[in-house]
Amino acid sequence: MCRWLVYAGSAIRPEELLYKVDHSLIDQSMHSKLGATTLNGDGFGMGWYDGPRPPGLFRGIGPAWGDRNLRELSEHLESPLFFAHIRASTGSPVQESNCHPFRYRDWLWMHNGEIHGFHQIKRELVLAIEPELFPHLEGSTDSELMFYLALSYGLRDDPIAGVARMVGHVERVAAAHDIRDPMQMTIATSDGEHVWVFRYSTQHQSRSLFYSRRIEALRELYPDNANFRRLSEQTRIIVSEPLGDLPGAWHEVPESACGLVDPGRDFLQDFHPEPV
Amino acid sequence: MCRWLVYAGSAIRPEELLYKVDHSLIDQSMHSKLGATTLNGDGFGMGWYDGPRPPGLFRGIGPAWGDRNLRELSEHLESPLFFAHIRASTGSPVQESNCHPFRYRDWLWMHNGEIHGFHQIKRELVLAIEPELFPHLEGSTDSELMFYLALSYGLRDDPIAGVARMVGHVERVAAAHDIRDPMQMTIATSDGEHVWVFRYSTQHQSRSLFYSRRIEALRELYPDNANFRRLSEQTRIIVSEPLGDLPGAWHEVPESACGLVDPGRDFLQDFHPEPV
Amino acid sequence: MCRWLVYAGSAIRPEELLYKVDHSLIDQSMHSKLGATTLNGDGFGMGWYDGPRPPGLFRGIGPAWGDRNLRELSEHLESPLFFAHIRASTGSPVQESNCHPFRYRDWLWMHNGEIHGFHQIKRELVLAIEPELFPHLEGSTDSELMFYLALSYGLRDDPIAGVARMVGHVERVAAAHDIRDPMQMTIATSDGEHVWVFRYSTQHQSRSLFYSRRIEALRELYPDNANFRRLSEQTRIIVSEPLGDLPGAWHEVPESACGLVDPGRDFLQDFHPEPV
Amino acid sequence: MCRWLVYAGSAIRPEELLYKVDHSLIDQSMHSKLGATTLNGDGFGMGWYDGPRPPGLFRGIGPAWGDRNLRELSEHLESPLFFAHIRASTGSPVQESNCHPFRYRDWLWMHNGEIHGFHQIKRELVLAIEPELFPHLEGSTDSELMFYLALSYGLRDDPIAGVARMVGHVERVAAAHDIRDPMQMTIATSDGEHVWVFRYSTQHQSRSLFYSRRIEALRELYPDNANFRRLSEQTRIIVSEPLGDLPGAWHEVPESACGLVDPGRDFLQDFHPEPV
Repeated sequence: MCRWLVYAGSAIRPEELLYKVDHSLIDQSMHSKLGATTLNGDGFGMGWYDGPRPPGLFRGIGPAWGDRNLRELSEHLESPLFFAHIRASTGSPVQESNCHPFRYRDWLWMHNGEIHGFHQIKRELVLAIEPELFPHLEGSTDSELMFYLALSYGLRDDPIAGVARMVGHVERVAAAHDIRDPMQMTIATSDGEHVWVFRYSTQHQSRSLFYSRRIEALRELYPDNANFRRLSEQTRIIVSEPLGDLPGAWHEVPESACGLVDPGRDFLQDFHPEPV
Repeated sequence: MCRWLVYAGSAIRPEELLYKVDHSLIDQSMHSKLGATTLNGDGFGMGWYDGPRPPGLFRGIGPAWGDRNLRELSEHLESPLFFAHIRASTGSPVQESNCHPFRYRDWLWMHNGEIHGFHQIKRELVLAIEPELFPHLEGSTDSELMFYLALSYGLRDDPIAGVARMVGHVERVAAAHDIRDPMQMTIATSDGEHVWVFRYSTQHQSRSLFYSRRIEALRELYPDNANFRRLSEQTRIIVSEPLGDLPGAWHEVPESACGLVDPGRDFLQDFHPEPV
Repeated sequence: MCRWLVYAGSAIRPEELLYKVDHSLIDQSMHSKLGATTLNGDGFGMGWYDGPRPPGLFRGIGPAWGDRNLRELSEHLESPLFFAHIRASTGSPVQESNCHPFRYRDWLWMHNGEIHGFHQIKRELVLAIEPELFPHLEGSTDSELMFYLALSYGLRDDPIAGVARMVGHVERVAAAHDIRDPMQMTIATSDGEHVWVFRYSTQHQSRSLFYSRRIEALRELYPDNANFRRLSEQTRIIVSEPLGDLPGAWHEVPESACGLVDPGRDFLQDFHPEPV
Repeated sequence: MCRWLVYAGSAIRPEELLYKVDHSLIDQSMHSKLGATTLNGDGFGMGWYDGPRPPGLFRGIGPAWGDRNLRELSEHLESPLFFAHIRASTGSPVQESNCHPFRYRDWLWMHNGEIHGFHQIKRELVLAIEPELFPHLEGSTDSELMFYLALSYGLRDDPIAGVARMVGHVERVAAAHDIRDPMQMTIATSDGEHVWVFRYSTQHQSRSLFYSRRIEALRELYPDNANFRRLSEQTRIIVSEPLGDLPGAWHEVPESACGLVDPGRDFLQDFHPEPV
């Protein structure tokens, strides 16, 4: 299992959310409160958009808490849209090609959760990847495979449908192998303009996912908090577990839901796998 | 491209061949004379047998020449049969799961060369791996894939036939994609008792491969050489390029050949891919 | 802070103590019960004696729990005397030269604890190292520096006196800088024949240290336990915190004590710093 | 020995000089033409200024040619002043704290060369570091030690004098130990506004160093070259060995010289060690 964070809003330095807040993502790498494991020390990654071109990617195989390069980058980069992820391996090797976020052209993808019985059905899932996408698969995780399946099922044209069909496919293959409750996931994906997030598991007991309350509301609640004055009203943060400990700052994403992160057009809706 | 070495004989410390001889394998990692690249700095590995159980494996992603742990192990292990490999990536990531030798149960496998046009045909090759072997594939190289294809084609029952069918399969798939001269390989594989080696390329211009002359012959040639007195008459060394620079110490494995390394039963024979 | 383990007895594979017992050292790297930190993920090391020559050393900068090479070595090595250590950095970089055990010729050294106010007095401590030992200092930790100070103060001739003078020196320098309670340590050191262990802190609230009860006693207590039948009566295990959870299996080393580990000649005695 | 590069001018992405030109710095890591070693694969580093605060630092212990994170950063950062360095160890461990550039507050420092007989005089050199600077020393190289000696001798107030006294000190200590020709160096250092470079060796046979010709002159020589149209007239590049292969593009820094890089105020002058 893993912890992850998406930031979208006015350009900031990632250190604000990775290091400077209470219960920051780096704190969570050592002592997660809500994760399936308290410890997320099996590699990390950051992906950031900084203009009209594919996002940058920085990934490492050591624990995030001790990585000096991550500390440096998070102080020297500025980005209006970035993904950060800390990994707890569920078995696949700790190597950069298994660290999130994964990237395909302009798209980023990261995941918390797992496909139960993955080794039994991996081959069949791999076969469903479009032949021209296949050579881009570099690692050995279920997470990266889910990304390429979703791309094969149309993620770029309709992200919610692409993910719904990917989940439908995984659940169908798992059922044929008598694997119960195969899917456990929270996912974030982006094309650099919008971010989509998903919370779903076959048995409807999904890993936690939260999004930040509107900044205006937080300013009213906490008129003295300097952080809220600095952030623009467009700011959105989505996290596996809350940063800080301010009552009222976070909403939980409902069970079996997905949403678009896009100020003014934000929405949350039910998420249903689509049979394929 | 890469450099590799197999030792079989009385138990020795790997440092003898990795560090102590002239033009040792570690020297070759910096300055190969016969390799397709002079530099083999993209990871390394050692596999060693030490009794009736699967071999040990030590692999690293830095250059072999600077790895202190490899230096320590090669001084403190003793083994009658070991594989050592230094890697020059032909494109796939530098990660432990891409370092040779590869292991499946009692078997080791290592490779120098490449499958031309690999990305075009990788998916089709992956599909030919037996479903129960598939989950063991961990990395992203052509070399590991060739191993699992050979296992799927019967390597464990008949090593030479297994490799011949693997090559036949690769050449057939490549031909269907209009890829010319797909296979370039020298290979070593072992079950812990015997070692088989192969030198082959579709266009019959294969990477170099050498085996050591009989120790008795070398003792006659070099009566003052202490190394040859220490080694038993059962000793066999097979290398991508010669260690040391003693005239007469090495025979070249002929083009399109394969052989069994087993004192008293040694043989070399022509190698032909088998259509599948 | 860190966790460590010394084994002395009949030759075994380190995996027995590193992986196979309950609450093994590798478990402790993720979830220490008695450590100052629960998490010891900042590198690791193993040193092992295997004959009349300097010990082997294997160290890595990732977390021990995910290191495949450590797993392999601990299955394939056999040693009658080995040290294993998992590190939680107190500030110095995570690099191999900062991983325990440290080695000087035949000697190994490992440490749990820290010198408070180290940065203020590091220069003065460094100056007290014998000039001919100085170039061997490779890392930047207080632990390695304590080793070279103890060597400078006669560790090789009289280990207990060497450590007592090292502590005396550190406490004197700290006092001159108005640093209170500078020393916090449990230490193990060996020349390959004997092992000496120390538990001490200036304020007499030292980190935990335990030694295994006599094997004969354990056999009587647990007549059905196969582990105890396999181990020789010479076996001694010293650990930062108990492995397994058998009542009666472990004795605590008393506060401010040191001891020799040597079957038949074992002793424990008070430890007092020696003014220098 | 090593290779290094300084860029100062209008903000560019480091990839232009690290990857995109012929005989780029990354090419040089595999195949240096003028270096003491052809191979510079023992770690790398980049330091970049991006505003009124200490520079960013990214360092790695693998070879630069295969590091994906370096590739990403060099595409996504923009900087008007950066240092890049590829290392060939002369003996000290390959660890991040031994990778150049070194940083102290706003200052960067990198070095090619070595102090001969370093191990004999290291202790005496370490003692000459100012006590308050001492705790900042993290690695074990001669290069970092030279930086802290120069800082101790006034680098921040008068860079040329600080380096001259540092060299004078090293040469005096070496002479007292009967070490001949101790110093071999090319150095770059910066406070974020200016860059100073040095070429010197005790025996006046210093490693190569080059600076780029004025852009206007290059535009006249090569009116069709798009690179020269993009670069501002303020651009200065200083390198261990030339990038590209355009005749007339580079001047050699003379033997025993130092200079200031600052458009309009540039100068080159003789460099003499200062007795201390």
